[in-house]
Amino acid sequence: MPDSLNSDSLNIAIAGLGTVGTGVVKIIQQNKVLLTNRSEKTINITAVSARDKSRDRGINISDYQWFDDPVAMVKDSDADIIVELIGGADGPAKAVCEAALEKGKHVVTANKALIAEHGVSLAGKAEEKNISLLFEAAVAGGIPIIKALSEGLSANKLSRICGILNGTCNYIVTEMEKNNEEFEAVLDVAQKKGFAEADPSFDIDGIDAAHKLSILIMLSFGIFLKFEDIQVEGIRNISPTDIDFADQLGYKIKLLAITKAKKEGLEAGVYPALVRKGTQLADVNGAFNAIYVVGDAVGPTMLYGMGAGMMPTASAVVGDIVSIAKNIENNESGIPKLYSKKDEIQLLSLNESYNKYYLRFQVEDRTGILGKITSILGKHGISIESVIQKGREKDGGEVPVIIMTHESKEKDLLSALNEIKKSDLPLSEHMFIRIEELN
Amino acid sequence: MPDSLNSDSLNIAIAGLGTVGTGVVKIIQQNKVLLTNRSEKTINITAVSARDKSRDRGINISDYQWFDDPVAMVKDSDADIIVELIGGADGPAKAVCEAALEKGKHVVTANKALIAEHGVSLAGKAEEKNISLLFEAAVAGGIPIIKALSEGLSANKLSRICGILNGTCNYIVTEMEKNNEEFEAVLDVAQKKGFAEADPSFDIDGIDAAHKLSILIMLSFGIFLKFEDIQVEGIRNISPTDIDFADQLGYKIKLLAITKAKKEGLEAGVYPALVRKGTQLADVNGAFNAIYVVGDAVGPTMLYGMGAGMMPTASAVVGDIVSIAKNIENNESGIPKLYSKKDEIQLLSLNESYNKYYLRFQVEDRTGILGKITSILGKHGISIESVIQKGREKDGGEVPVIIMTHESKEKDLLSALNEIKKSDLPLSEHMFIRIEELN
Repeated sequence: MPDSLNSDSLNIAIAGLGTVGTGVVKIIQQNKVLLTNRSEKTINITAVSARDKSRDRGINISDYQWFDDPVAMVKDSDADIIVELIGGADGPAKAVCEAALEKGKHVVTANKALIAEHGVSLAGKAEEKNISLLFEAAVAGGIPIIKALSEGLSANKLSRICGILNGTCNYIVTEMEKNNEEFEAVLDVAQKKGFAEADPSFDIDGIDAAHKLSILIMLSFGIFLKFEDIQVEGIRNISPTDIDFADQLGYKIKLLAITKAKKEGLEAGVYPALVRKGTQLADVNGAFNAIYVVGDAVGPTMLYGMGAGMMPTASAVVGDIVSIAKNIENNESGIPKLYSKKDEIQLLSLNESYNKYYLRFQVEDRTGILGKITSILGKHGISIESVIQKGREKDGGEVPVIIMTHESKEKDLLSALNEIKKSDLPLSEHMFIRIEELN
Repeated sequence: MPDSLNSDSLNIAIAGLGTVGTGVVKIIQQNKVLLTNRSEKTINITAVSARDKSRDRGINISDYQWFDDPVAMVKDSDADIIVELIGGADGPAKAVCEAALEKGKHVVTANKALIAEHGVSLAGKAEEKNISLLFEAAVAGGIPIIKALSEGLSANKLSRICGILNGTCNYIVTEMEKNNEEFEAVLDVAQKKGFAEADPSFDIDGIDAAHKLSILIMLSFGIFLKFEDIQVEGIRNISPTDIDFADQLGYKIKLLAITKAKKEGLEAGVYPALVRKGTQLADVNGAFNAIYVVGDAVGPTMLYGMGAGMMPTASAVVGDIVSIAKNIENNESGIPKLYSKKDEIQLLSLNESYNKYYLRFQVEDRTGILGKITSILGKHGISIESVIQKGREKDGGEVPVIIMTHESKEKDLLSALNEIKKSDLPLSEHMFIRIEELN
C-alpha cells in the first residue's frame, strides 16, 4: 500500500477524459469540501491522460500533470488511485489497470467489458497486492448495486435478479410506447439526439446488458460466466402492435437482464419481457435503469436511478474513490473469491425454463384458425389463459390473434410454434414474448 | 481491536431474541456456507441473551452460551461483535452498546431510537476505540440505504430525500385506498393482524419515521437534529374522501419523511402528501418502504424493499456483520464526523416552505361559496390550479369543494385558511395536504 495513503490526502490520476472522465473532474472540483468532509481526506486530482490535450471539455485541467500515455501516467505520477475511464475490454484500458495493480495503486473503473472479461484475474492481482479494485460505475451507472450486492444484501441467498440495465433500450421502448412508433423510426431519432450510438448493436442487441448481467452474477453467485454464454435477444423485434396489446392486457414491455437460481442450476438471459403494470419495474421509463433483486431473507427489493450519462456514472466513480478514502486500511476487490465452481452451478438453457408467454399470430381472417392454433398448442402441453381475437377490419385482411399462456416449458412452446409454422395455416408472422411476473 | 478478529472466524453475541434476533439466528444458521464464502470468515454465534430462556422461538439455541444479563454477556463472552436487538433509546440497549464499545467490541444494532438519540456520542466512542458501529437495520429494514448514503451516493450534494419509512402507516393507507375504508376501521384490523401495535401512536403519529429521518439527515448533511425538532404529522386525519379525490386528480396519498436542502437551510418534516401516480413512490404499497434520493450528480434514485419484519430486518443486521467480517482491518462508524455545525445549517420551519396544496372544504351547498373561498385565497397570494365542485346530492346537504393550488408559501396558506375558518362561510371541515412533485 502506498505510504501516502496514510496521510490526509489522496492523489488521483484519471486515464480517459471523455464524458465520464469529464464528469469525475467536475464532481471533484465542485464538491471538494463535501468530499473532504465525508471521506476525511482531501481528494486531489494530480494527473490526467487522454488522446487530445487541447480539446475543450468545459473543465479546467491546467493544474494537473498531463500525460499522453496513460501507462506512463501510472508509472510516473504520484497517484494513489488510478481511475480508468478509457473503455474497452482490452488495449490501453487493460494495460492501465494491470500497470496500476502491478505498481500497488488502487484502481477505480467504469469499464464493464473489462470487468466482465478480465475481472477475476484483475481482482486476483489486487488481492495479491492488497489494494482495491472497485467498479460501481460498471453496472447501472449511478445506482449503487455493486455495493448493495457485496454488502447490504450479502446475508441473502438470492433467487432472482431482474434488471433494466441498458438505458438506450429502455429509452427506445418507452418512446415506442409513448408515440406508438416503429423501432426503426425511434432508433433513428435516438441516434440523432445522441441517445444511441451510430452503430447501436452493442446496446440494442442486448450485449451491453449481458456484460452487466455477468458481473451481477459474479457478485451474487460467486461464479464467472462468459457473457457469450448468456442467451441474448435484443429489442429489434419489438413492435408497437405488441406494445399496444401488452398494454391492453395490463403489461408493459421492457428489455430485462434476468438470472434465476433454480434447483438444477442458474438461468440467465437478456430478452424483452412483459412486466405487469403497477409493479416497480413497469414504471422505469426512459433512460432510467433499475435492478429488482429477490433474497431469501430480505424478499423483493429494487434499486432505481440513472444508468448512464456523464454525471450519474461519474457519481459512482467518485463514490468508489470515497470508499477507498474511508476504508484506508482495508483493501478489497469488489469481486469475491469465486466460491462456486463451474461444475457446481450449471448454466441452464432457456429451452428448459418455464414461463408464461404472450403469443401473437398474424393470420388471414378465416374461421377455424384460432381452433387449429389452440389445438396444436394443446398437443404440446401449452395451456391457454386468455385470447384476444379482433374481428376483421377490411375484407380478407389479416388479423392478429393474441394468446396468453399459463406457465409452460419453453422447449414445448418452441415445438408447438414450429409445428404451427410448418402447418398449412395462413400465417404471415408470429411472435412470442416471455412474461416476467414480479411479486 | 480484538485479536481474534485476525483469525478466520468471527464470534457473535446477540442481545435480544425477539423477532429480529430470532431472524438473525435463522439466517446465520441457514446461510452459513454462503456467509463464509462471502465474508471469507466463519461467522459463529457463541452467546445469546434475552429475558426468557425457555420461550420457544422455533430456533435451536442450545449450542450458544446463555446470559440472563446482556451486559454480563458483553463482558464475559468471547464475542468479537455484539449484536444489540433489545430496542429502546436508553436502558439495557444503551448499556449493552456502551459496554461493548468500552471493551473494544464491534457493535451492530437495529435500534433507530438509540442511534437517533445517542448515535453521535456512540460513534465517537467507536472511533476512539477504532471499532465499528453499524446500524443498517435501523432505517428501512432490509433496504441498504445507510450504505448507499455513506458510500454509493457519497459523491453527491443531496437536494432531497423523500422516504416511505413506516410500513405500518403505508399498510394502513394502502388498505384504506384499496377498500375505501376509514382510518379507524383499518387500524383496528391491522392491530388484530399484528401489523400495528396495541399502542400505535409511535408509528401512526409519525414519530418512528421522524427517528429514521433524523438518522438519514445525519448521514447526508453531517448534522445532528433532535427528532423532536422535526415537524411531524401522522396519518390519523387521512380520510377515504381525500384518498378518493386524490385518485381522481391522478395522485396517491403517502406518509412521507422529507428533507430538502435549500439555500436558506434544511427543511425536514414527516407528513402525508399527494404523490403523482406513475412515479416510483406512488407504487410503493402495503408494508413496503422506499427512499427517493436526489443528488446533484446522480439525479433521482430510489431504493425499495421491505422496511420491517423478522427476516428483512435480520437481513440488514447480518449484512452489517458481513461488512465487518470483510473489512476486518478497517473500522468505521456509519456516522460521519458531524461536519456541519448547527449554526451553519438552519432548520427551516415548514411555515416558510413552498408547496403545491390539495385543499378540501366541506361546505353547505349554496351559491357563491366557492367564489368567497377563492377570493380569500387570492387575497393571501394563493393561486389556484384547478377546482372540483360536485353538485349537491341531497337538498341542503354538504358538498366537498376541492382546490389544487399552484406553489405557495405555507405561511400564506395558513393565514388564508384561518381567515376562511373565521369567516361566516358555512364550513364544517377543511383539510390541506401538501403535494410532493417528484421528477
